[in-house]
Amino acid sequence: MGKTYKPAKSDKFAFGLWTVMNRGADPFGAPTRKPLDPLEAIRRLGEMGVYGYEFHDNDIIPIGTPAAQRDKLIKRAKQIGDSVGIRATMATCNMFSHPVFKDGAFTSNSAKVRAYALQKAMNAIDVGAELGAKVFVFWGGREGTEVDSSKDPAVALKRYREAIDFLCEYVLDNGYDMKFAVEPKPNEPRGDIFLATAGSALAFTYTCAHPEMIGVNPEIEHIRMSGLNSYHEICQLLEAGKLFDIHLGAQKPLRYDQDIRFGAEDLKESFFVVKALEDYKWPGTRAFDAHPYRTENEAGVWDFVEGCMRSYLILREKVAAFNADPEIQGILAEINEGNRALEKLMSGYSRESAAELKARAFDPDALAKKQLRYEKLDQLTQELLLGVR
Amino acid sequence: MGKTYKPAKSDKFAFGLWTVMNRGADPFGAPTRKPLDPLEAIRRLGEMGVYGYEFHDNDIIPIGTPAAQRDKLIKRAKQIGDSVGIRATMATCNMFSHPVFKDGAFTSNSAKVRAYALQKAMNAIDVGAELGAKVFVFWGGREGTEVDSSKDPAVALKRYREAIDFLCEYVLDNGYDMKFAVEPKPNEPRGDIFLATAGSALAFTYTCAHPEMIGVNPEIEHIRMSGLNSYHEICQLLEAGKLFDIHLGAQKPLRYDQDIRFGAEDLKESFFVVKALEDYKWPGTRAFDAHPYRTENEAGVWDFVEGCMRSYLILREKVAAFNADPEIQGILAEINEGNRALEKLMSGYSRESAAELKARAFDPDALAKKQLRYEKLDQLTQELLLGVR
Amino acid sequence: MGKTYKPAKSDKFAFGLWTVMNRGADPFGAPTRKPLDPLEAIRRLGEMGVYGYEFHDNDIIPIGTPAAQRDKLIKRAKQIGDSVGIRATMATCNMFSHPVFKDGAFTSNSAKVRAYALQKAMNAIDVGAELGAKVFVFWGGREGTEVDSSKDPAVALKRYREAIDFLCEYVLDNGYDMKFAVEPKPNEPRGDIFLATAGSALAFTYTCAHPEMIGVNPEIEHIRMSGLNSYHEICQLLEAGKLFDIHLGAQKPLRYDQDIRFGAEDLKESFFVVKALEDYKWPGTRAFDAHPYRTENEAGVWDFVEGCMRSYLILREKVAAFNADPEIQGILAEINEGNRALEKLMSGYSRESAAELKARAFDPDALAKKQLRYEKLDQLTQELLLGVR
Amino acid sequence: MGKTYKPAKSDKFAFGLWTVMNRGADPFGAPTRKPLDPLEAIRRLGEMGVYGYEFHDNDIIPIGTPAAQRDKLIKRAKQIGDSVGIRATMATCNMFSHPVFKDGAFTSNSAKVRAYALQKAMNAIDVGAELGAKVFVFWGGREGTEVDSSKDPAVALKRYREAIDFLCEYVLDNGYDMKFAVEPKPNEPRGDIFLATAGSALAFTYTCAHPEMIGVNPEIEHIRMSGLNSYHEICQLLEAGKLFDIHLGAQKPLRYDQDIRFGAEDLKESFFVVKALEDYKWPGTRAFDAHPYRTENEAGVWDFVEGCMRSYLILREKVAAFNADPEIQGILAEINEGNRALEKLMSGYSRESAAELKARAFDPDALAKKQLRYEKLDQLTQELLLGVR
Repeated sequence: MGKTYKPAKSDKFAFGLWTVMNRGADPFGAPTRKPLDPLEAIRRLGEMGVYGYEFHDNDIIPIGTPAAQRDKLIKRAKQIGDSVGIRATMATCNMFSHPVFKDGAFTSNSAKVRAYALQKAMNAIDVGAELGAKVFVFWGGREGTEVDSSKDPAVALKRYREAIDFLCEYVLDNGYDMKFAVEPKPNEPRGDIFLATAGSALAFTYTCAHPEMIGVNPEIEHIRMSGLNSYHEICQLLEAGKLFDIHLGAQKPLRYDQDIRFGAEDLKESFFVVKALEDYKWPGTRAFDAHPYRTENEAGVWDFVEGCMRSYLILREKVAAFNADPEIQGILAEINEGNRALEKLMSGYSRESAAELKARAFDPDALAKKQLRYEKLDQLTQELLLGVR
Repeated sequence: MGKTYKPAKSDKFAFGLWTVMNRGADPFGAPTRKPLDPLEAIRRLGEMGVYGYEFHDNDIIPIGTPAAQRDKLIKRAKQIGDSVGIRATMATCNMFSHPVFKDGAFTSNSAKVRAYALQKAMNAIDVGAELGAKVFVFWGGREGTEVDSSKDPAVALKRYREAIDFLCEYVLDNGYDMKFAVEPKPNEPRGDIFLATAGSALAFTYTCAHPEMIGVNPEIEHIRMSGLNSYHEICQLLEAGKLFDIHLGAQKPLRYDQDIRFGAEDLKESFFVVKALEDYKWPGTRAFDAHPYRTENEAGVWDFVEGCMRSYLILREKVAAFNADPEIQGILAEINEGNRALEKLMSGYSRESAAELKARAFDPDALAKKQLRYEKLDQLTQELLLGVR
Repeated sequence: MGKTYKPAKSDKFAFGLWTVMNRGADPFGAPTRKPLDPLEAIRRLGEMGVYGYEFHDNDIIPIGTPAAQRDKLIKRAKQIGDSVGIRATMATCNMFSHPVFKDGAFTSNSAKVRAYALQKAMNAIDVGAELGAKVFVFWGGREGTEVDSSKDPAVALKRYREAIDFLCEYVLDNGYDMKFAVEPKPNEPRGDIFLATAGSALAFTYTCAHPEMIGVNPEIEHIRMSGLNSYHEICQLLEAGKLFDIHLGAQKPLRYDQDIRFGAEDLKESFFVVKALEDYKWPGTRAFDAHPYRTENEAGVWDFVEGCMRSYLILREKVAAFNADPEIQGILAEINEGNRALEKLMSGYSRESAAELKARAFDPDALAKKQLRYEKLDQLTQELLLGVR
Repeated sequence: MGKTYKPAKSDKFAFGLWTVMNRGADPFGAPTRKPLDPLEAIRRLGEMGVYGYEFHDNDIIPIGTPAAQRDKLIKRAKQIGDSVGIRATMATCNMFSHPVFKDGAFTSNSAKVRAYALQKAMNAIDVGAELGAKVFVFWGGREGTEVDSSKDPAVALKRYREAIDFLCEYVLDNGYDMKFAVEPKPNEPRGDIFLATAGSALAFTYTCAHPEMIGVNPEIEHIRMSGLNSYHEICQLLEAGKLFDIHLGAQKPLRYDQDIRFGAEDLKESFFVVKALEDYKWPGTRAFDAHPYRTENEAGVWDFVEGCMRSYLILREKVAAFNADPEIQGILAEINEGNRALEKLMSGYSRESAAELKARAFDPDALAKKQLRYEKLDQLTQELLLGVR
């Protein structure tokens, strides 16, 4: 149909470096792809029209790298990024790969491990700041349990908060232009991870010393692992002004963390996530956190990258069509039945408005009869998605 | 073994009236039990040693009851309660049974339905206050969607909040001694319910005009419907000081809302929920929200009631045993490896503490080697639960 | 785009009468729609281009209907069906609504209940035969437990089989042209239903006295309730020659039985189900078992009916496009790498072929390197579904 | 309480070698334990009272091992086994770790990969036979898809069957005393695995050329990954005479494959699994397939081993107590209401028995009233499990 769906820098797409560096290992099998150098990953993503990259400290700087080498790597990352028009948009700290974190980082029962995690996080924040990342994400993948007797969750949350509060001060003290985002996940690699849902993470931010600095980084796959509706979860964050980053991908519900190409599963839910971001003109990057199927070889990695972006662009186009569709919009107008007088009464309490509302006679049986044409509305939506209207 | 596990009023058990009035109908079958009069339910519960009852407005006062009859019913409820030593501990408003709420109450797309819901809630609050309930619960079972195009979740949350804020003012204006608790549920009867998890509900309370008045009423079954860990979810609420009520019951994960007898499923998770409530001396009632199996006849209802309380008492006894078990406590002490110097550094940010932490040399490989005897710890816990130690 | 997607009788669509007679009640709410007469349902479906209807005995003939009235109802159903060109394609026996079945029918612990169920099934088979239904379905919705101590599953299966074997003989003895199909479901209304999956039901058929008479009636929603892949499950039945009926609908995974309009969820999985039926030229009716959203009024029921059929027709068109797409077919050809010599060796055991295979030198590392362009393949599939290629 | 719960060889416990050789790596983290030599694993298990071990070909003989070394390894395994009284009870072929199997083994789209898999399986069968294993398991962990367009499931099943049929002949031709068992799993490492459930695997066996040689090896964890009831699934296999091996472990439902210590989750379901095996005097080994928590070090591996066996022995003791409990048995007797006359009528079809059953007058309303004391029954069961009766 002649559409190219080529990404532009203005689309603000981002990829985690780890997504393309993923080698296809899984709990039952060895890697199927050769290692990809992070600097090469940055270059290649930039060339493909990607606006930004996200990274873990150790994606670019392995544990134990000497300081001089660290500085050189950061410099090279900047140079390559500049040359292909891509920047670091989010940084994060790997607190899950090394066995030292086997029972958590900020919530470990060992004070030494907690302290090491805090040190590592400060260093990762420094790298993030040097590379210009404005968002720093905390995915506490190991902050959880298999054995509930091993950690009191209330104590664990206090420890978590203490670390986050400390790091907020660190950022402020260093004058970094950086916000935090907590990334929730229900389970895997732990049996149960603390701050399991977008809601728990959001609630947690309000209990921190600097709630204005801390938001949430929801991931579609993590939401779907609990069978929840990613559109609903993301909208709660948007409405609260706490959507600080987003991870797009796909997942069949209630399975291990599949992390597959955005758009590969549940087109309707993906469509509504795009709709929320676009309708509310959310300013952040459209970041993908997923990885190529293990069956792919090195060449397939770039099909994965292209597919994620194409899916977003196609769905964005569908959003515009949805918003312009007279039949769909007609049903929506019909459904949303306002009543200025009542809305005024409800919009703010006064003794009088309460009295007036209490005195009002309603006929619930009559109100119940209203036709809500949701079968039609959803059918039209699906047909729009299927491209047959 | 001679233990009676008889409930005392001091155990502060409560039951929803609807739990014993449940007639065993389900989506595929007609009722299997005769109606039970609410006043009779109150009497019987009180006689069985139950401390409090929870109720929907329409459990006691059907829609359309004339005012005089309403007052009489309330008076009778009080009299009977007094006679058997049971009080109303929680009230709530049924905004789900009548077809008028088929597409929601506070989040309905119809202003009239929203206004009717607000009116009904005020009236229910009045009844709750008259009967002395200190907690008023909002379970927005119809606040959700099957068709995502039908409601913008961000708009829905604004409407939800507007209603809650209005009702807070109503309570304050009337001088009622009452707090609110939002009861989250992921789905059923709607495809997806807004404020799906304990976390979403908790987060929502912080965005309301009177956050100090609004907490959460988690239900074990609802948490397990999403496969989440009810101990973890409830502890987040406890730690935030926002556990305003609790609904105990049992459920196999990721099924329809089973609402079965507390203690009937997942003994370990139930044990830890009891442990959290007891160890933190949580002052609320231990309220059961579940219902007898549909296979039970009228007599079985009281076996259900007795079973819920017995299970709690048995598990509470196990909590004491766990806390007193030297081997278990020995492993816990061994696991929790403090370090006063490091803990002091981490406990509050200063430029100096950050510098000192950054300068500190850690050996992650060495730290990773520590044995964490969680196999043993969990085995001991299970054997304690099984009564063989 | 000018496509009408109007159903023709040759499309062989069928609906359960109960789907359009559904009144929108659910565990938390009263009906939202008025009753629909079954004969009116038959007429209306026939007029809309539907080929067949499926029915429970009690959809047409309520429990307790006198014999004369029964015969009259059957006669009227035939007349109306003839007048609008619709026939009974599947019959089944309601063994779940009446409280007598609260603990099962064929697997009840009560011999009297089992006997009553057998009697009711014979009568329902008679009605089915009179109306010309060639398939008789057993959905054992109450054949299960909440309390595992209450029924030994091995005993329950023996009872189940005894009933099925009896009824096979009954059909044979009466010379009815009728086959049986067991409809599996994992849970709801029971905590766990016996023969929970398509596989369990299929396996069970092989253990019956007349396996050739008994197949399976899978339902997409029931499969997705366990998070399984409906395309895979249905293909196993197809491959075994045991797909005797099918129930099409939609469902978000791992929730209560949503039973929503076919095509309303997971377009890709629905597409592959249609593809299997069409590619293998499966001769059965395309039967829908779902119901309108509870938010719909009486008029919306027919939007639901139309939507199911349109979705099927659109997806069928997509199947043809998929099969004709050169790029997609090119990748498929590339993936399927045959080897005539090896295939011959593997196709039937002989001492020589085994020896030759064992002696053969393979290079697994080299074989592992083959590119399998599944990212591209899936992206093309999704874009075809989205109508942008 | 003085009980030792020490395993005896007569308890017939078995462990997969891979369970104790597991090093604690997961998709997000490196190994936490040092490698354990398989021969050392055999020795240690034998010394701990374990009766048998299960193994993959490559657990003992890595890919590429020269023939002489292979023979030596087998000889050593035998010697060590003899010295500590442990034998190989089950063998299997690793067709999932090497990247050559990235898209399946017997169902790969590549004829060469399928042929290599067949060769590898024959060699593994030889090793199994040499070590005396009487059961050979097929866990087709890679036999599945993420991209449904990539494999026609019907074709895949045909390929699967062709391989199994070939290998049956191979076993017969070689005169090995060996049966096959297919091990089902719904997903992970593939998005969807073919033969996803115990039922699908069971059904598949009936379609093979030698159904009498092929049974099923269910794993509790795999069943619970789909939220199904492991007691029900295992009983269907038992009843069909197709339980050829079993894998015991524990798992929270609907998560990644947790593979945790038997008895660590859902005590009631574990109890009923043990009850089925014991009550039916199932003759196979009680084999554990799980692994120590990743948080454990090398020493904790043996706590894991001990815990699995202790849990089984404790639950076995509970089974005896359940079977001897007069109150429990009284309720069961009361529930199971026989009727000799009706049972005779139903037990085998004749025209007369059908006529008599049809003529019989039943009163469903009266039958429905029977009290089924399941609340009490389940409460007694739980209290027995909790050790308070």
